[in-house]
Amino acid sequence: MSIIQAEHIMLNDPAHTRVNFESQYDHGSAFISGTYVDLDHAAIPMSDLGFMQADACYDVVSVSKGFLFRLDDHLERFETACSKFRLTNPYSKEETTEILTNLIKMAGTKEAYVWWAVTRGDMPEGKGRIDPNAYVNRFYAFVVPYLFIANDQQRTQGIDLMVSKEFIRIPPESVDPTAKNFHWMDLKLALFEASDNKYDWSVLCDADGYLTEAPGSNIFLIKDGVLFTPDSGCLEGITRKTTLDLADELGITARVEKVNVNQLFDADEAFLTSTAGGIMPINSVDQKLLGGEAGPGEITTTLHNLYWTKRWAGWKGTPVDFTTQE
Amino acid sequence: MSIIQAEHIMLNDPAHTRVNFESQYDHGSAFISGTYVDLDHAAIPMSDLGFMQADACYDVVSVSKGFLFRLDDHLERFETACSKFRLTNPYSKEETTEILTNLIKMAGTKEAYVWWAVTRGDMPEGKGRIDPNAYVNRFYAFVVPYLFIANDQQRTQGIDLMVSKEFIRIPPESVDPTAKNFHWMDLKLALFEASDNKYDWSVLCDADGYLTEAPGSNIFLIKDGVLFTPDSGCLEGITRKTTLDLADELGITARVEKVNVNQLFDADEAFLTSTAGGIMPINSVDQKLLGGEAGPGEITTTLHNLYWTKRWAGWKGTPVDFTTQE
Repeated sequence: MSIIQAEHIMLNDPAHTRVNFESQYDHGSAFISGTYVDLDHAAIPMSDLGFMQADACYDVVSVSKGFLFRLDDHLERFETACSKFRLTNPYSKEETTEILTNLIKMAGTKEAYVWWAVTRGDMPEGKGRIDPNAYVNRFYAFVVPYLFIANDQQRTQGIDLMVSKEFIRIPPESVDPTAKNFHWMDLKLALFEASDNKYDWSVLCDADGYLTEAPGSNIFLIKDGVLFTPDSGCLEGITRKTTLDLADELGITARVEKVNVNQLFDADEAFLTSTAGGIMPINSVDQKLLGGEAGPGEITTTLHNLYWTKRWAGWKGTPVDFTTQE
Repeated sequence: MSIIQAEHIMLNDPAHTRVNFESQYDHGSAFISGTYVDLDHAAIPMSDLGFMQADACYDVVSVSKGFLFRLDDHLERFETACSKFRLTNPYSKEETTEILTNLIKMAGTKEAYVWWAVTRGDMPEGKGRIDPNAYVNRFYAFVVPYLFIANDQQRTQGIDLMVSKEFIRIPPESVDPTAKNFHWMDLKLALFEASDNKYDWSVLCDADGYLTEAPGSNIFLIKDGVLFTPDSGCLEGITRKTTLDLADELGITARVEKVNVNQLFDADEAFLTSTAGGIMPINSVDQKLLGGEAGPGEITTTLHNLYWTKRWAGWKGTPVDFTTQE
């Protein structure tokens, strides 16, 4: 199989990416209650229902070579998530963009992980908890230097994946996964299950054995040159969308539909996608090597390299102007 | 039908309950990172995964007439929840009891709502997120004056309940509801759905139409003198357990088993149970009056009154010594 080029994974060296090493925001910058602070001092009220009841939605966008990637898509998805959860972002898209951009400049890195959320806020005093209009929603954000959620070996050699046996993904009829949210316990415990069994990562099915998503990432498989990814039960990831765009550009047929877990075992290739990782090859599923040999598949590698090549050229990017002081 | 005695619901008047009105902990007391603070200044790190990923478990115990109710049962349940979520309480049961007792004394109220949680803590630096042992778990707690989650009218006249049409409860195969947790979005949106339709409260079913639980409470129904409550898909509430104890004392047959939602429509009586509300009668379900007339049923009223009579006499209570200064 193919080898992912080393030059594409060398983003973790801060010497190449940090603009300002003497920043007071050494571990990251944060925005809370209208104020910019360093991440080490960013705190939220214990009484915020975003904490006590996971009553919030969030989004994450990445910055690479100083370009915010598909910012409009992230802002649009976030607005939809707020709407689905009956939350109101106190800031407009323009104001949100300004806050996030300021945080990136403060963090002083051209490779950044940019997180923001709107929470329900405190339980309304003297009013019922039942009225969604009685709450004052809150906005929080932070920026840290970009970190891949897969390590260098996993991103070059491929991930050894486990299909979770103990957990199914929270179904859309309970909590809509297309509205990015804090409900992660199924994902976390499935990760620990993978760790217990010496795997790198896990993927969760629904109650009927159809693939949904992996912790923090979407899943794709390739069979006989055709790309498959689940159409439901998962986040509509921006990297997932980008992968479908790239497949289209490459003339690869893509099918977005229900995908049974057995199709994964039988796949020629597979990979995960994530804002915090790009396109990450899968080496094996439940110890079965995909395509009969170790390492990333050909199509996976082609998609991976095209993804980073285009991103680094500023494709769908919003440049951050680091020359102006914040 | 029966009328719940007014004397049993007059707990909300702080003049009867506050020991110390001049306390600096006017809105409540909190414990965070080993320090006692007033609740208004209690904050948690934005980076705590208890916030970002609802990666935590919690419990709530109440104080009435200065007695902590069934504290050992709550501590035991919390320890089990930690174990199920692979969290470790940094404090022993004895230390946890001491912290909670100190907080109650600081809050200066003999009628208290006592909340505590253990969170996953921050993402471990330089280690994989996949290893549960790489995290340093954190303990948080707060105490506020007791507030009923049902208002006086609901608790005397009965709750007008809606069976959620839009949401099912998160299934145990995703997140175990017997481990009390922050995954509340399904419950919250079902509450808002009830509000939209002019109901007081909602109850959620599982995917097969069996009753699970209502936001913050368990559900019981009575048919031909027999008590029914779901055996799965819900928190094993301490007030639920207490209700089963009281039924046993009164010679009422109780069946803990799968309960179809149609049994609720056909019930003679029904009620919700909660630490933050005791036994709360249901007046109607989807606009159908239970038992054919308005108001709490006979057995519900008997259980309700026995519950508070016994609690106020210190049954299963741990007295808080307010004479020693904290």
